[in-house]
Amino acid sequence: MRQFLVVGHDAPTAPDFSLDDIAGGAGRLDVLCRCVNSAFFLSHDLREDVQVHLVLADEYTVSFDGAALRRLNPDERSTAALIRGALEEKQEAIGHQPVETSPGVSLYRMGVEATFDRVARDATVVQLHENGEPLVDAEPPEDPLFVLSDHHDFADGEADLLDGKADRRVRVGPKRLHADHTITVAHNYLDTDGYREY
Amino acid sequence: MRQFLVVGHDAPTAPDFSLDDIAGGAGRLDVLCRCVNSAFFLSHDLREDVQVHLVLADEYTVSFDGAALRRLNPDERSTAALIRGALEEKQEAIGHQPVETSPGVSLYRMGVEATFDRVARDATVVQLHENGEPLVDAEPPEDPLFVLSDHHDFADGEADLLDGKADRRVRVGPKRLHADHTITVAHNYLDTDGYREY
Repeated sequence: MRQFLVVGHDAPTAPDFSLDDIAGGAGRLDVLCRCVNSAFFLSHDLREDVQVHLVLADEYTVSFDGAALRRLNPDERSTAALIRGALEEKQEAIGHQPVETSPGVSLYRMGVEATFDRVARDATVVQLHENGEPLVDAEPPEDPLFVLSDHHDFADGEADLLDGKADRRVRVGPKRLHADHTITVAHNYLDTDGYREY
Repeated sequence: MRQFLVVGHDAPTAPDFSLDDIAGGAGRLDVLCRCVNSAFFLSHDLREDVQVHLVLADEYTVSFDGAALRRLNPDERSTAALIRGALEEKQEAIGHQPVETSPGVSLYRMGVEATFDRVARDATVVQLHENGEPLVDAEPPEDPLFVLSDHHDFADGEADLLDGKADRRVRVGPKRLHADHTITVAHNYLDTDGYREY
């Protein structure tokens, strides 16, 4: 399985935002929505063997499971509506018990570290880092968990967490990319198995 | 320069659509907006040496020039607003004379073939094709023009045009990708010069 954990530093934790303003009032929720798109969509198909975990302001995490997802559309607005719908049920997420708010979409009352601990088990943690190994030279990891940040850099504590727990460090290219574009490149790399043959 | 021509088969040709419904009533304009995002955005930077040409239902073309672009934001809604703004001035696009409707955004009264002829000069036309050469094995083209389709396949006439005029045929991987994801992979390939060194 491929997993992507995306840290949304400014993301909303309450469902009181407007779908007309997801790039503004909703704390750049558009960035996270595009990450969901990049992680799941193929042309006329969905990647079932993928999970995405969006951490919202270190308080909640919305997890998407490709094996169970329904009602996911490629556009930002409809994905933002799924996230808003998850936040509408946040009172139901008690302790570390999630609440499934739409098929394949679950809300957890967990921040970055708890989510990391939950999803990193049995995964190869891949840190994307400008000093990492070029992706093309890297052996494709088994069950990778890619950890990404939104439009901000990782906060110090997040960077320390990753530094301590990353199994691998790779970089996707010579230019710094948006998180969603990084996901697309990582998928393509894994799809082609390091471009060895396809 | 890198160019991307994207054919929007169902795209609107009038500015009477709602920004709240770009994935529905506006003929999947969301697909084209994401292509603009993928073509231009780097992390905290914009690719200046890029042009994108969105063909709207074979009637109009909105061209984005990275060297002159201002007011472009990553989210779909604001890009859709730029396209709507361009269509609001379509009466000013007379013959083949474009009208610049926002810095770096111009509307042409041109369909697929006229746009292709306009932008293919001095470019290496790259057809993305499932039977093409794997991208990693392909020599990076000089001044590539990638021609892509929205969520539909190319219409017969478009495919014939491309078959006749493509200089190169490549495929980005073993899976069929959305147009915007294809742009991201193509950029990454060119950025890393075929992964030879970076």
